[in-house]
Order: sequence, then structure tokens, then C-alpha cells
Amino acid sequence: MKKNFSLSGMPDFNTLQIKRREFLISIIKKKFQSFGFKPIATSLIEKRDNLFGSYGTDGDKLIYQIVRSGDYLNKLNIDFQNINYNELSQNICDKALRYDLTIPFARFIASNQADINFPFKRYEVGSVFRADRPQKGRFRQFTQCDADIIGSNSLWLEIELINLIDSVISEFGLNDLTIKINNRKILEGVFESFSSNLDFSNFCIILDKLDKIGFNGVRQLFLTNGFVNNDLDLLCNLFELNGSFLEKKEFLLSKFKINSNLEKGLNELSFIFNKINIETIKQNIEIDFSLARGLDYYTGTIFELVTSNFSGSLAGGGRYDQLTEKFDLKDLSGVGISFGLDRLCLLLEQSNLFPLDIDDNIDFVFLNFGDQEADVAQSYIIKLRDFSVSAELYPDKVKINKQMKYAHKRGAKFVVMIGEQEMKQSKMLVKNMSTGEQQVLTFKELINTL
Amino acid sequence: MKKNFSLSGMPDFNTLQIKRREFLISIIKKKFQSFGFKPIATSLIEKRDNLFGSYGTDGDKLIYQIVRSGDYLNKLNIDFQNINYNELSQNICDKALRYDLTIPFARFIASNQADINFPFKRYEVGSVFRADRPQKGRFRQFTQCDADIIGSNSLWLEIELINLIDSVISEFGLNDLTIKINNRKILEGVFESFSSNLDFSNFCIILDKLDKIGFNGVRQLFLTNGFVNNDLDLLCNLFELNGSFLEKKEFLLSKFKINSNLEKGLNELSFIFNKINIETIKQNIEIDFSLARGLDYYTGTIFELVTSNFSGSLAGGGRYDQLTEKFDLKDLSGVGISFGLDRLCLLLEQSNLFPLDIDDNIDFVFLNFGDQEADVAQSYIIKLRDFSVSAELYPDKVKINKQMKYAHKRGAKFVVMIGEQEMKQSKMLVKNMSTGEQQVLTFKELINTL
Repeated sequence: MKKNFSLSGMPDFNTLQIKRREFLISIIKKKFQSFGFKPIATSLIEKRDNLFGSYGTDGDKLIYQIVRSGDYLNKLNIDFQNINYNELSQNICDKALRYDLTIPFARFIASNQADINFPFKRYEVGSVFRADRPQKGRFRQFTQCDADIIGSNSLWLEIELINLIDSVISEFGLNDLTIKINNRKILEGVFESFSSNLDFSNFCIILDKLDKIGFNGVRQLFLTNGFVNNDLDLLCNLFELNGSFLEKKEFLLSKFKINSNLEKGLNELSFIFNKINIETIKQNIEIDFSLARGLDYYTGTIFELVTSNFSGSLAGGGRYDQLTEKFDLKDLSGVGISFGLDRLCLLLEQSNLFPLDIDDNIDFVFLNFGDQEADVAQSYIIKLRDFSVSAELYPDKVKINKQMKYAHKRGAKFVVMIGEQEMKQSKMLVKNMSTGEQQVLTFKELINTL
Repeated sequence: MKKNFSLSGMPDFNTLQIKRREFLISIIKKKFQSFGFKPIATSLIEKRDNLFGSYGTDGDKLIYQIVRSGDYLNKLNIDFQNINYNELSQNICDKALRYDLTIPFARFIASNQADINFPFKRYEVGSVFRADRPQKGRFRQFTQCDADIIGSNSLWLEIELINLIDSVISEFGLNDLTIKINNRKILEGVFESFSSNLDFSNFCIILDKLDKIGFNGVRQLFLTNGFVNNDLDLLCNLFELNGSFLEKKEFLLSKFKINSNLEKGLNELSFIFNKINIETIKQNIEIDFSLARGLDYYTGTIFELVTSNFSGSLAGGGRYDQLTEKFDLKDLSGVGISFGLDRLCLLLEQSNLFPLDIDDNIDFVFLNFGDQEADVAQSYIIKLRDFSVSAELYPDKVKINKQMKYAHKRGAKFVVMIGEQEMKQSKMLVKNMSTGEQQVLTFKELINTL
């Protein structure tokens, strides 16, 4: 059997895939910039402690940990008989691969606060890593495109991000996607209305499984954690409700005793739904009280971009009030959105929305008739490249058939032949590979055709 | 004391740094493409076994290893009393961060050989990781820009790469850099002329330290490994020789007994020095018999790009005949070059060669006079962005002074004010931040000035 040297869920990309990814990234960056976001880049590796505890208990398990360099056992006093793998990792790993771009952003802010002009709008496009089970559109190494604003709790920023999502997606040519909105304060208010053995963080983690296990699965998990059936019926009704924000708000107000979190959350959502300019938004916007998002750090508005053609979200984000506290920086509210590049690529492929003329075809392949001829060819090639075209010499003097086959597969626009005769006349035979037409030209004549 | 949450040697980049890096990368990519190279991307993580053994014993120590996911101790039967850290890592780590882009390229070739049109020219720009001691221009996470051709042993490819290095560096505006060339076969021939306790791989590893510890340091290391003083005197003379390739070749032929490796190496170098078009090359080219390169996989020509303004190399590469054998693919010779982006950035900074107009200034900042006014501003902002300009609303209704200070620091070209009065008249006050000039305009008038 052939040995597999590649890791599952760790993707390589071929040239076509790269070109498509670069096409998407260039649109995303252009939009980010037009909204006033500035690029930064954070390191791919973080201190282990920066990451653990930020993504919930489920998230912690998915963090890739890096062992210390050098003789890490030398300084340690480990009781190996009684240690489990978690404790061992904690002792011998001091670094980890970043799990998202948000925590590294918070660290960046804390480290560079003196140089930053707040409110600070940054974007970053980069790889993140999660030791999850690989599935279609879900890799272990994947690319996020994040835009965040930190240093203001203005709800205008939520509106800005909704406009940004809409603007990016519409520019891709995608239609009929849905931007789902909810607010963690509402979830917290609902959670406070019920009695259970859970804390709010785990309530959200269970809710976040709704997509995968459905409400009945979620219901079972809640029941084993002390929820009562009546409360869960009410929750189910709340989640299954159709209608506008105002209708859903009405239901919430009529069925739940209002508490401070419910009130704050509804006020925030009201502002957003009131101020957002529905006429300029091209995709759908929907309030979804069941939207929870898995990450621990959200405290207000949360977003998710979904489509019926694709399971899982294409983008997600939200408001966080305490993100930088972990890095000793308080009172800095922020809000952000993260696009999943790999899933967007799949969706655009599925929807045939990539331009057909994305290619990497070379302009000129010079055939190799031997060292003397190649010498002449090489001198022309060097000059040609100054005219912003791509050109190369076939490296080996092999049968011309083989060289032509290579040039054809390579998508060469022109094949240039300089044999003994052409060399004597200081000319070259230029074959147009799409028409088959052949011409004998001087180098100057060739340049004039460019 | 303030806690440091960042890792040493793992760099973040601010906006200016990103813009500068993107400027260099865009030139490098343009040149790679004009030479006919196609982009691919390999995963950042490799199977541990793919990496170990490829970079010499010194290199292995610098590889970052990732512990297995889940309860990795569960299935293992480890005698912890007698295990050392190397053996433990081998047991509990199955993945590692890539150390260069060359081994991942070889794996990519082996995995995708059926789809590849050989000879295959690929480029890749990406992060690599080495647990080295951080120094100026030497990070633990750094970016390499690699161009390789695999599937031909033609020496025209070496010439192509020398032209490529020259072309990239000259496009940057750099002058008087030196492309050093040597050939591993010559080193092997020289090595075979001497008797010692070393193998050839370790001979190269010691030679590679020449930059850091000088010939006397290297001499000591060789002496402790069984070399005799006479041989080392000869080696010293060979290395210290000045002159052209022909002069150095003459010395080699007169002082060493010719063996098969020496002969092959000299033939290869002769072809290159004979065929390369010195008149079109803008930088210096120099034969340097002391050049060794640290990596294990080189078998023929080796290159390095150096400058007197900077210690360490700016680019390096060479010919490898067995690179893909590790991945069960034989008889595939290749040659490549790798530019170190971080060092090139430092050198261009030092040489003041970055364009001064690299900025990320925003075109329009709309001040915030309250929700009603912001509502109007937001509607203009959305429309403005369709005209390929960047625009944003200051998110909070705070003192105008504070907002102006933000806009100034942000490098805003225009500040737009829509207060109660402007709102009534459907106009806006537009301040040109470089001239200080203020105009009251309708939105249409503003658009017409763009």
C-alpha cells in the first residue's frame, strides 16, 4: 500500500486553489479597507496560557500544544505514575498554535496599547488551528479573515459589521444568504429565568450544538443538567417562532418575566434593527434567539452568516466586553466578525462564482535545441521578462514532442523555437498555441507584437 | 512588573510593517511569475517523521513538536523512569511545525505526482519555524519565499535561479550584493582528500559555522574530529583565495588530487560560469569554496546571497537529487532558492528603500453628533464606499475635539461634519485635513470632487 505522508485535515493548495483563494482574499481586503480597517498580523504561536480557558472546555481540547525546546524533563519533577495527559501537557508544553485571531488580537492590543489610536479597527487574514474532526469545509488548519473594532461600545459598530458582511458577500456574487443576529444578554436573561445546574457558559456551549444534534438532542442535554420540561417547552417555542424582530420581541416580553439582561439585550437589538438601513442590505437579516456561538468571550451582540446550501456558518462574530482583561487591560469593549475562507471557497465553487479566466498560464516557452541554441534563447528570455511577460526555457534537450507536450499542458500562449537555422538568421519561429499559427520573427518583431 | 504575554522570537506586525512586507512580497511574486513559477501552498504542520532527519542533527533540535490530541498516554506503555526527553517527544508527538518550505514541497510532489506537469516550477511564500536563539533579523517564526524547479537536472536551471535572485534584488533597488556559489560535490571531493573521523554531512555542518565562529573556530572543531594540521592549512588557503572562478579552479586542480566528485563539481560550475550572461547580471557573482549551507539535502550547486551591510544570508538554496526519496519518489532532481523576507525587510529599511507613500490613511472620517445625525452620516458612508474610497463613522458621540484628534492620528484625508443645521439643509461640512480648507457641500457635490 502507498504510504500517506500527509496529515488529515491539514490542507495543501494547488495553483488553481491558490488563485481562487487570492481572488476572495483580495475582495475581502478591499472591503475591509473601504470600511477603514487596517491590517496587522499576529504570530501563529501563542503562550499556552494565553489560549487555555478562552474557548470553553470543549475548545481547550482542540488546542494544539507545542512541547518545550531542549531537555524539558531536566528541570521538571513529575510523578509519572499519577499524572494524566492533561497535567503532563501543562508541564511540558509552554506554547500552542492559535485557535482563532481574536485572542491574539487582544494580546496585540495589550502589548501595543501605547501606540494605538482608539477606537482601533484592524483586520487580519491568517491560519488558525483546531484539532477537530475533519469534515467537508472543516479543516484542522483553516484561514480566517477577521475585522474587529476595539475601544468603543457604540452599537453603530454592530451596524457597521452587518453592512460589512453584506458588502463582502454581495461582492462575491452570492445571493440569499442570511445574517443571523442574537444577543448574549438575551440568552443570559432567558437562562436566568430557568433553574438548572448549569452555568451560563455551559448553557451556551450546549445551545451551540443545536445545528448538529437538533433541539431534541439539546433538550436531552438540558434535562440531564436539571432543566424542567416546562421551561424547555417554552425555550423550544421561542426558538421555533417565525417572524420579524418586533414579533419575536413581543413573544419574549409576553412569556418571560423581564430581567435586567433581557431588557439590555432587547434594547441593543432594538437599536440595531431600528438603525440599520434595510434597503441597502442585499442579503437577509434575521433575529434568531437560538443563536449562541461556541466561544466564551462574547457578551453582547452575536452574528452568524448562513446559507441553506451549506451546513455550518460562513462567518461569525460578536461583541466582547472583557476580551483584553486576560492581558491585564480593562474596560475595552470590542466587536468583530470572522469570515471562514475555506468554506467561502467551497460555496463559491459550488455556486460557479469564480471567474473562469483565473489561470497561471505562461506567455512564452522556449524549446531547448542544445546548449548553443539555449544560450541564445536564454538571452531573449531575460529581455522578454522586462516587458512584463512570463517566459522560460525548457531546461533539457529532449525530443521536441516531449517539450511541446509540456508547453501545451503548461498552458503556454506561445512556443518559441530557435534551432540552428533560426540562430544563424538571428530569428525565431513563434507558434501561437491557441491558433496554431507559426511566424518567423526577429526579436524586435516579437516585441512589437506584445 | 508588567507581565509579558508575547513569546520571544514570534513576531507580530503592525500596519506599516505589513504594508512593507506586502510591497516586497508583491515584487517577489511578480518576478517568480515572470520566470514561469506557479504558486502552491503546503500545510504549516507536517507529520513529525517527515521532518526529522532532514536538517542534520543540529536542525532536528530546532523543530517545534506538537503533542498528540486526546489522551495520548492512554495507549502508550512508557517506562518513565528511564526515558529521556527525546524519546518521550518521539512517543507523544506525532506532528511538527514545518522548518522550511522545501521538505513540504517534496511531500507535495510525492502526493500529487500524477497531476503534475514536470519539470515543475513552483513558488511558495509562507511561515516556517525554528526554535533558534532570536537575534536581529532572526526570528523563530519567519517568512520564506521559495522558488524551486523539480524534475530536471539541467544546469540551465541553476542559471535561471541566479538570474532570478539578481532580478528580484535589483528590482528592490539594492546594489552591490553578492551571490555566492559553490558545489557540494566539490566540498565532498575536498572532504575525500582528507582523512578524519567525520562523515560528510557533519563536515558541512561544521563548515557552515564559518560565518559565526571564523576559520579558527572551525579549525578547532576539525582538529578534535581527527583532521591533521597540514590538511587544514590547505583548506584555509583554499578558502582565503581571492580571484575569479578560473583562478580558484586552477588552485584546486594544482593542490588537490583530482577525484570523481571534484571533477563533477568543477564541470558543473564551469558550465554555469561559462553560460551565465555576466553583462545582464547587476549584482556580484562569486565562487566561494567555503560555502557549505547547513541543510542535509543538497547534492550539487549551492547558492547564498550576502551583503557586507548585514550578517547572515538574505537568500540561500541549491540542488538536491534525493529530496523526494524520503517520500518514496526516486530520480527526481530539483533546485531551489529561498529568500528570507524578514531579513530583506530589515535591509530595505536600513537602506531607506521602501517607498515613502506606503500608508493606510483613510479617506473620510464622519464625526458623530448623535444618533439622528449619525443615521444620516451612515447612509452617505455606505454610498461613498461604492466609489472606491474608504470611509467610516466615528462610533461614539463624544467631544468633537476628541473625534478630531482621532481623525488626525488616523491620517484622515477629509473629515465630514453633519450637525443639526447641515442635516436640515441636506448638506455636509467637509474639511480637507492637509490644507485645513472647509467647504459646505451636498453629497452630489462631494462625489463630483472625487
